[in-house]
Amino acid sequence: MAGSNFGTAFRFTTFGESHGPAMGCCVDGVPPGLPLAAGDIQHWLDRRKPGQSRFVTQRREPDQVEILSGVFDGRTTGTPIGLLIRNQDQRSGDYGEIKDQYRPGHADYTYDVKYGFRDYRGGGRASARETALRVAAGAIARRILGDGVRIRGALVEMGGDPVDRHAWDWGAIEHNPFWCPDMATATRWESQLDDVRKAGSSVGAVVEVVAEGVPPGLGEPVYDKLDADLAKAMMSINAVKAVEIGAGLEAARLRGEANADEMRLVDGRAVFLSNHAGGILGGISTGAPVVVRFAVKPTSSILTPRRSIDRFGKEVELRTKGRHDPCVGIRAVPVGEAMLACVLADHLLRDRALGPQPRGPAPLP
Amino acid sequence: MAGSNFGTAFRFTTFGESHGPAMGCCVDGVPPGLPLAAGDIQHWLDRRKPGQSRFVTQRREPDQVEILSGVFDGRTTGTPIGLLIRNQDQRSGDYGEIKDQYRPGHADYTYDVKYGFRDYRGGGRASARETALRVAAGAIARRILGDGVRIRGALVEMGGDPVDRHAWDWGAIEHNPFWCPDMATATRWESQLDDVRKAGSSVGAVVEVVAEGVPPGLGEPVYDKLDADLAKAMMSINAVKAVEIGAGLEAARLRGEANADEMRLVDGRAVFLSNHAGGILGGISTGAPVVVRFAVKPTSSILTPRRSIDRFGKEVELRTKGRHDPCVGIRAVPVGEAMLACVLADHLLRDRALGPQPRGPAPLP
Amino acid sequence: MAGSNFGTAFRFTTFGESHGPAMGCCVDGVPPGLPLAAGDIQHWLDRRKPGQSRFVTQRREPDQVEILSGVFDGRTTGTPIGLLIRNQDQRSGDYGEIKDQYRPGHADYTYDVKYGFRDYRGGGRASARETALRVAAGAIARRILGDGVRIRGALVEMGGDPVDRHAWDWGAIEHNPFWCPDMATATRWESQLDDVRKAGSSVGAVVEVVAEGVPPGLGEPVYDKLDADLAKAMMSINAVKAVEIGAGLEAARLRGEANADEMRLVDGRAVFLSNHAGGILGGISTGAPVVVRFAVKPTSSILTPRRSIDRFGKEVELRTKGRHDPCVGIRAVPVGEAMLACVLADHLLRDRALGPQPRGPAPLP
Amino acid sequence: MAGSNFGTAFRFTTFGESHGPAMGCCVDGVPPGLPLAAGDIQHWLDRRKPGQSRFVTQRREPDQVEILSGVFDGRTTGTPIGLLIRNQDQRSGDYGEIKDQYRPGHADYTYDVKYGFRDYRGGGRASARETALRVAAGAIARRILGDGVRIRGALVEMGGDPVDRHAWDWGAIEHNPFWCPDMATATRWESQLDDVRKAGSSVGAVVEVVAEGVPPGLGEPVYDKLDADLAKAMMSINAVKAVEIGAGLEAARLRGEANADEMRLVDGRAVFLSNHAGGILGGISTGAPVVVRFAVKPTSSILTPRRSIDRFGKEVELRTKGRHDPCVGIRAVPVGEAMLACVLADHLLRDRALGPQPRGPAPLP
Repeated sequence: MAGSNFGTAFRFTTFGESHGPAMGCCVDGVPPGLPLAAGDIQHWLDRRKPGQSRFVTQRREPDQVEILSGVFDGRTTGTPIGLLIRNQDQRSGDYGEIKDQYRPGHADYTYDVKYGFRDYRGGGRASARETALRVAAGAIARRILGDGVRIRGALVEMGGDPVDRHAWDWGAIEHNPFWCPDMATATRWESQLDDVRKAGSSVGAVVEVVAEGVPPGLGEPVYDKLDADLAKAMMSINAVKAVEIGAGLEAARLRGEANADEMRLVDGRAVFLSNHAGGILGGISTGAPVVVRFAVKPTSSILTPRRSIDRFGKEVELRTKGRHDPCVGIRAVPVGEAMLACVLADHLLRDRALGPQPRGPAPLP
Repeated sequence: MAGSNFGTAFRFTTFGESHGPAMGCCVDGVPPGLPLAAGDIQHWLDRRKPGQSRFVTQRREPDQVEILSGVFDGRTTGTPIGLLIRNQDQRSGDYGEIKDQYRPGHADYTYDVKYGFRDYRGGGRASARETALRVAAGAIARRILGDGVRIRGALVEMGGDPVDRHAWDWGAIEHNPFWCPDMATATRWESQLDDVRKAGSSVGAVVEVVAEGVPPGLGEPVYDKLDADLAKAMMSINAVKAVEIGAGLEAARLRGEANADEMRLVDGRAVFLSNHAGGILGGISTGAPVVVRFAVKPTSSILTPRRSIDRFGKEVELRTKGRHDPCVGIRAVPVGEAMLACVLADHLLRDRALGPQPRGPAPLP
Repeated sequence: MAGSNFGTAFRFTTFGESHGPAMGCCVDGVPPGLPLAAGDIQHWLDRRKPGQSRFVTQRREPDQVEILSGVFDGRTTGTPIGLLIRNQDQRSGDYGEIKDQYRPGHADYTYDVKYGFRDYRGGGRASARETALRVAAGAIARRILGDGVRIRGALVEMGGDPVDRHAWDWGAIEHNPFWCPDMATATRWESQLDDVRKAGSSVGAVVEVVAEGVPPGLGEPVYDKLDADLAKAMMSINAVKAVEIGAGLEAARLRGEANADEMRLVDGRAVFLSNHAGGILGGISTGAPVVVRFAVKPTSSILTPRRSIDRFGKEVELRTKGRHDPCVGIRAVPVGEAMLACVLADHLLRDRALGPQPRGPAPLP
Repeated sequence: MAGSNFGTAFRFTTFGESHGPAMGCCVDGVPPGLPLAAGDIQHWLDRRKPGQSRFVTQRREPDQVEILSGVFDGRTTGTPIGLLIRNQDQRSGDYGEIKDQYRPGHADYTYDVKYGFRDYRGGGRASARETALRVAAGAIARRILGDGVRIRGALVEMGGDPVDRHAWDWGAIEHNPFWCPDMATATRWESQLDDVRKAGSSVGAVVEVVAEGVPPGLGEPVYDKLDADLAKAMMSINAVKAVEIGAGLEAARLRGEANADEMRLVDGRAVFLSNHAGGILGGISTGAPVVVRFAVKPTSSILTPRRSIDRFGKEVELRTKGRHDPCVGIRAVPVGEAMLACVLADHLLRDRALGPQPRGPAPLP
């Protein structure tokens, strides 16, 4: 059954396989009048695209986006925005021998079980290439959110080695190949990941994405809570195995008095004295920064031979060749940012359906 | 905008506040001909209901469910099943003084910001009482899944103290007030939680829910992946701050060769030699047990005075009276089981839309 | 698969069979702060309820509605509104003998084919009793639309005899048992329908519902056009076989120059000099009255013996006893009004998601 | 808010404006293993494409479709199918002067009111060019339905002149430029439409689409009834103002005993002795042919000067130049067929979610 779209009021739909002729995205529900050009989307795509350092796949894909509809005279028209990215570097030959074998940790087996066969070239639909379209949709979502909402992401742990949070510097993330918010940590990771890469192995990572300036009141209880939709958004990204909001798992290790964020008034505005809640209470944004973390498993495409089976019911040993990411979590940072932007844009529009704030019979502080 | 339903092919919709006259649920998309009586639902509700030990809220609610439609001659008819639970023990007086004050860690503030005012009695719509309806829907979901799918849950960590996994015994969970799968751990927790309770404090917990016998092939890539929907399901439960699938966060700390589950054939059937994936690859079930964990924050209703503000823009100190759970994670166990059942039932029906397996042009092992 | 809810931003879900214990409705997405009491809904239910004249079913149902949630201190809270109507007059004995036989023109056969069996009492889920819940949802939709939008309906044709449109008087509709906008026509119908009733036969009807004061700009091209959703809404009402917008079928018999509504400015406001479009162009409301008509087939429950089959594969002759409407179209008038209100409320909220008007880069007239 | 997709289990999403670089469609939920090539879709597109007779727009568009994803080795993979049609013949100059003026009967005014501005070139998103994508989606829907379901459409009335139903010959529809099922009527229409065309005027039409071989049991009561979804599908087509199922409006003019279709057994199979119901009872298919009619208004683009206003709030007289259809209803025939196929495919998949028939506890005839 259909499952290729995301969002409700702001909704995008994607199609495309890793080695097909092209991938596409339809972004629907975009308010009219927003300035938008291909370059605005390309800016974010360029941050995700492969081949930018020795730590990500060496596949050469310009990921050039074309806007096919929904924009006129440089502005969005309110009609669906069609986006197209042609695939360029499709070395299908690399994948021929795994056509009938199931790579451990990959979706090869499950796609075959569900669909009976699969486009095995480069992982087909299950390839992380699909995330380029999420980044493209996220670029449009950022436009909807406007400059008042700032979304940034960082790699906060790689191969079990966490970033030094006391040294956190957002300025650092653009100056190392890991989106690491601490240059000292980045240097450490660089050396570690070189070892991993040379060993033909791979490591996992943890990504943190943060949105500042989110207006309070976003989220639709009780099933379309803001955090519920964020959890779905992040878990739908390839290789993600855990999602945390705010203090996340650590919240379960705090006492009630330590966890609950106290409130005070500063210049007449409600402020929270801490943010264990990650900016969400009861499924609704509080106005504090929305903080989401997700864990990315290590790439399953590795050089070590692994035991598996093939589609004919035989046991095999297989070793993945081809071009791969020693830490696929790196390129997940812009994807996580994009999904955060998409969820927030969707809920901003959904909240507007209730009418302009303030609402209800009584005045708010 | 509407956000009170969950699921697509199997969809339930809930309404009701903690202290209103009743709560209700409409369960839609249920295949016809399944045996169902109120007692089948009541069985699961009784496991969640309050007042069963000194470690959960002392509110007295029989949570008696009434089936209003969709069942005829003891079987489901394929039409929507209406369920009703009358609220009984509504000591609204307990809540009068927090009517205008925002309890830290609660949804009081966000509901007021979003809606302008709120039903403050017992948390209104944000109360964990709503989860009774999830348990009711889950009981019907279990009927759809049939006896071949076994869903069980356990508390695996309380107040930062994890269960001894080597001593795991499913048989234990019904014999202690914590759904703890190890009696020794349960004894330890009992003493710890007595201290917490007497101190008027609260602790968090981690819940693990497991489904065995799940057919491979469930899940709709790429946005309605099985794990994505599970993440949403669990994060939508009150007080949940993190969701993990399989190895979860630990997967990000493993090397690729350690994390990827190898496959072999046993009696002609594909088996996985480990289950770091938690039974899901590429968003589709593998046939291995589906394993989901979620972290529940400590109850925010505590006796320690806390700083906050009120709806008139004044700073206040407040202390929650009333009846509360020292560890709300305990009662989240049956809720997590129910949500797991609902997601699986939904995806079982969604998968059927593709037609009977095997599918596609080539034979599977 | 689930199919018991209607609408997107404003969404209601119904459950309940004709002769079950109760029917219920969950109305979700309602903005907070709107004054609402059971009496506001009851007002509209009373207009639809059976037993009000000799021309509608003599079943005695008070159709007393109970609000179970979503309203606090006399105002909507923004959370889902649960509604319950207990069934009272369930003479199931009347229906016993058609338990295994398929009444021609009824859903007996199709429910059995689809679901394998059915609640045969009073038509079960397929009974027009379900429409009471639509009327209840419509009462809430009217609150959302506010006093600026006026929704009225009338019977414009009965048994092939159309109302005299030149004598149209909205004031008349409350003063005859047919919601007929012309007393002379009503008198004629009264005599005709008495004959039909005494003959144990039934006739069809055409209903027209009109909404004045609808703001321009409602509707979401290209699949959720306002007229597309209205067509679905009306066709989903029991026994409806045709839906028209504006000039409807007659539009297909006009020349382009006669059909296209010209525009002028009156007091600086855009006005249409005619309304063949029925207030909708390109799927978006124009500001002119929204005009929808629908045709209701004659009740299939008649006293004349009819040829059919039974569930055991035998040919039978059957005659429907029980209490029925000689013209079910009469009671469809309040239902059509309600569905019109629901579609408009849904699209009002959906349109708000685009942000406040005016939109886009250039000024409007 | 998003509104550019259609269907639930089988869902397609479209984007694209009349004079943009391209239009696209994502068809999701397609079962795997179905043979599909671009030519299979092109076959149906060619039937709709412009410029095939002097009675349709002379715009030259090859409407060449490209499959971008979801098909591998000549078969569908179960993943979304991306389709692209490049626009070729975009004489935008023709439309320059109506850029600021609202053509009566067109969506110019409503798009400007809703979105603030619009892509005025060729009607932008509101152009009937979008229907090419529906035809493409319909081609895939036909594959899902298989050869057992036969879908055909015909023009049954043009300019108020109905076809002679006694002379109905499906074989005729491919041999005249109107899809008319009677050559004598076609000859009459040819002469009439020449007059209309030369006068720079336009006429409306009525289209009938029929599906034979539809399995009984399709449709999801009570809001996603098969007929309700068909009504939405047809009303969403450009210029449609009325939809009828089976006897349609005429049903409202029959007595109950004449309208209700009687049943008998033929070779042990249930058959209906007439088909006023149009193959649908209680929102569920009966197994008899599904019959849908819809009325198409006359093209609003005509040469006669008409009164209107412009976006600056001035009254104007305007005359549409450019290339247009004197009877847009002609090209609506393949579009209606396609939408019928899409609704049936969606409901076939939705019904499968309930599990294999027979269902329920008791045997069917």
